[in-house]
Amino acid sequence: MEGKIKRFREMIKEKKTIDSMLALLQWDLETQAPKGGYKLLSEMIGELSLRSYNLTTSEEFLEILTELKKQKNIDEITKREIELLEEEIEKIKVIPSEEYKLYSELTAKAQGIWEMAREKNDFESFAPILEQIFNFNKKFIEYRGVKDDIYSEILNDYEKGMNVKKLDKFFEELKKEIVPLLKDIKENKRDFQKKIKFQVSEFEQRLFSEEVLKYIGFDLERGVLSESAHPFTLTVNKDDVRLTTRYLEELPFSSVFSTIHEGGHGMYEQGVAEELKDTILSDGASMGIHESQSRFYENVIGRSKEFWCGVLGKSKFKYDKLSELSLEEIYKGINEVSPSLIRVEADELTYSLHVMVRYEIEKGILSGEYLIKDLPKIWNDKMYEYLGVTPKTDSEGVLQDVHWSCGLIGYFPSYALGNVYSLQILNAMKKDINIEGALERGELKIIREWLKEKIHRYGKLKTPKEIMLSVTGEELNPVYYIEYLKNKYKNIYN
Amino acid sequence: MEGKIKRFREMIKEKKTIDSMLALLQWDLETQAPKGGYKLLSEMIGELSLRSYNLTTSEEFLEILTELKKQKNIDEITKREIELLEEEIEKIKVIPSEEYKLYSELTAKAQGIWEMAREKNDFESFAPILEQIFNFNKKFIEYRGVKDDIYSEILNDYEKGMNVKKLDKFFEELKKEIVPLLKDIKENKRDFQKKIKFQVSEFEQRLFSEEVLKYIGFDLERGVLSESAHPFTLTVNKDDVRLTTRYLEELPFSSVFSTIHEGGHGMYEQGVAEELKDTILSDGASMGIHESQSRFYENVIGRSKEFWCGVLGKSKFKYDKLSELSLEEIYKGINEVSPSLIRVEADELTYSLHVMVRYEIEKGILSGEYLIKDLPKIWNDKMYEYLGVTPKTDSEGVLQDVHWSCGLIGYFPSYALGNVYSLQILNAMKKDINIEGALERGELKIIREWLKEKIHRYGKLKTPKEIMLSVTGEELNPVYYIEYLKNKYKNIYN
Repeated sequence: MEGKIKRFREMIKEKKTIDSMLALLQWDLETQAPKGGYKLLSEMIGELSLRSYNLTTSEEFLEILTELKKQKNIDEITKREIELLEEEIEKIKVIPSEEYKLYSELTAKAQGIWEMAREKNDFESFAPILEQIFNFNKKFIEYRGVKDDIYSEILNDYEKGMNVKKLDKFFEELKKEIVPLLKDIKENKRDFQKKIKFQVSEFEQRLFSEEVLKYIGFDLERGVLSESAHPFTLTVNKDDVRLTTRYLEELPFSSVFSTIHEGGHGMYEQGVAEELKDTILSDGASMGIHESQSRFYENVIGRSKEFWCGVLGKSKFKYDKLSELSLEEIYKGINEVSPSLIRVEADELTYSLHVMVRYEIEKGILSGEYLIKDLPKIWNDKMYEYLGVTPKTDSEGVLQDVHWSCGLIGYFPSYALGNVYSLQILNAMKKDINIEGALERGELKIIREWLKEKIHRYGKLKTPKEIMLSVTGEELNPVYYIEYLKNKYKNIYN
Repeated sequence: MEGKIKRFREMIKEKKTIDSMLALLQWDLETQAPKGGYKLLSEMIGELSLRSYNLTTSEEFLEILTELKKQKNIDEITKREIELLEEEIEKIKVIPSEEYKLYSELTAKAQGIWEMAREKNDFESFAPILEQIFNFNKKFIEYRGVKDDIYSEILNDYEKGMNVKKLDKFFEELKKEIVPLLKDIKENKRDFQKKIKFQVSEFEQRLFSEEVLKYIGFDLERGVLSESAHPFTLTVNKDDVRLTTRYLEELPFSSVFSTIHEGGHGMYEQGVAEELKDTILSDGASMGIHESQSRFYENVIGRSKEFWCGVLGKSKFKYDKLSELSLEEIYKGINEVSPSLIRVEADELTYSLHVMVRYEIEKGILSGEYLIKDLPKIWNDKMYEYLGVTPKTDSEGVLQDVHWSCGLIGYFPSYALGNVYSLQILNAMKKDINIEGALERGELKIIREWLKEKIHRYGKLKTPKEIMLSVTGEELNPVYYIEYLKNKYKNIYN
């Protein structure tokens, strides 16, 4: 038996190394590679993905898994790894390996094409590859024997237990509460934002972003901050966690909030227990829990008055202009409700409506109700219906997000789940910590330590449900989120 | 036979893919990786180097080589590949694979240690690993059965036909001619440089560096420019060639000349014929020829009056301050002779003396005459003897170059060879092109095309000697270089 466990660990180590290498190639592709390099990088990514696939579907590996599963006295970590691997293998083994490779190459290539299409506002050049990506995703689910409700199966992959029925209900509730609130606010429209719109050079924004990252507790010795068209977090391993942001010279707070958001993801990855490092449990429990961390830092922390009170007093570098503004002006500026076209620039209140647009579109394509070629129009219609705004170009409409080009169909709802979880978590944290005081004094370490202790260190050792139960005593419950939004925005717009 | 050739091409393709991946990991390590990532990256580099090693020393590969070698009617490219592979294998197969892997891991790790040592001016923390690197290099040569004159064998690896005897003679000659000239100039010392020392932000320097790169003909669609402690060029493949430079805010020309130097290397790599892309002939003929291209662009082109006449007239972005300077002021500023501590900041005249210091030290360590622990003193003594300057810290002395930490023992003389070749090449080019006119009119394309036609496109298909003979009609001949230096500097310092 010991021999089996040893071989199991070796094979896992090999898989982890391939995955780290894939992460590095992906990182390079999105942050530095010249156009001429896309082809080779895509090929390499395809080959490595195939190797990773072959490894976990090899007969030797499957045999070892079966053997280990029979053992009674196996340690908790290995047990959980086997459980997750079996789930993964069940999903993967039904996919012909050649198709898996084609799909990996396709998504690697798609990002270059998406970037170009977005730059040139040319949806048509992206449509064929987008269609292929959706088709692959559909086909992969069908290989499991699933015929109806493909989307529920996809949602369940991202967040175990989630399905269309639950999410339909959740968005319905959100719509019912937020739309009237948004209507009230629109009637009472104010230009809080103009105070916080000023020119700051990319260079200074970078300095401030790094300063804020350190301030919230992200370890820059074990991570970097770079730039990309769409901010993301990518983990090589827990000692090398990479974030990107993007700098808009006229909107100096945009990069700060992107950075804080990715910093929330990054601290989760950095905070995983050392003993999980060489296991497949070394990252976040689910996309929803991951987003709860990023949205917690971005909104609950980052858009609070107390946080900026601390930043102004404690951080070493900040924009010169900030000293001319009152705390109230900053607070209202970063919390103005103003339905926007771009999701990543959206205010906290309307954010989930952006998610809803994407949710409904994914659902419609996968059910066959919508056609890819009609997406620009469908997108624009929904934006008008829910947010009252219409994109002038597809670059600020259907082409704005990187997700679909990466194959991340079904990811968007995680952002909304993350919002809901983050407020449940805040509610629990309040029982242990005087959060407002900690923020005002710039003591963000207490908050990160609490999250690390309760959530981060477990990685995938616990399920999302187990985490939410142990931390908050409840499963998904939107009530805190909705109450928080109502209170916060009624107060700001009195 | 066709089957053999097909299998040979497959294995070469695999080797090329591993090498490209190694290049990407190396690039990441030196430009972006956080400290926490060094360990895993070094391990990965070690493993991939081992795979590359195992591939070209596998029985299957060696058998195919032997078979192919017997064939008469094999194409010219494959023939040359076999020739080079056999040379490489002869050298490599005597090294035990475990040692090869250890060495690769060592040099990967050494760069982080060197960088830290340089930053903290702490030679002692670097000395043990430097000693190991020299020992490995010595041992690897000894495995070939070479006992005496290890250094000649190393020099010959970089530039076929080179040895200590030839280089001793060459440096002797250079010393004889340059030292008196330098003495004259020192007596007539002038501060030309103060005119071109002004503050320019890193951001603007980056813009100008990119502009100059495009101006000389480097293709930024098939390459990138980034930053690192020590500028270098790294090729993923001919469509993805990566350069770095470094920005010193008070010396705005420093980054420009580093960029032009690396651009010369980069254009060589980008200019290799398409048909060599998937072969092992796809990079430069030798280090000496490679340096001839970088030094040609940096000095012969970049430090000429005509080049700056063209730049001032034609390039879209330049430092504001440049318009306040006369062409003569710029020309004298960038050509002031002022013995410096740092090789990469050295003027054209004293540059080869910096190389001589390193040459003599490498020779001394390998012969056992010098000990690693004494290097700081030996370095400083030689700097004083040849250049009349003494480093105040090891960071600006023995710790200044990245080369040794990468395992590049024996590389430095290539810079001096490159200088000599570059003037031989200029002399040949003059017969075909009105170079001064082309530079003044900003038509640098003609120059790159000439070099591409005569040198770049051949990659390693020709030997350095064949290239020099076909382009200039002569082998190494320092007379043009020495004459050029004498004329140029007598003129500047009349």
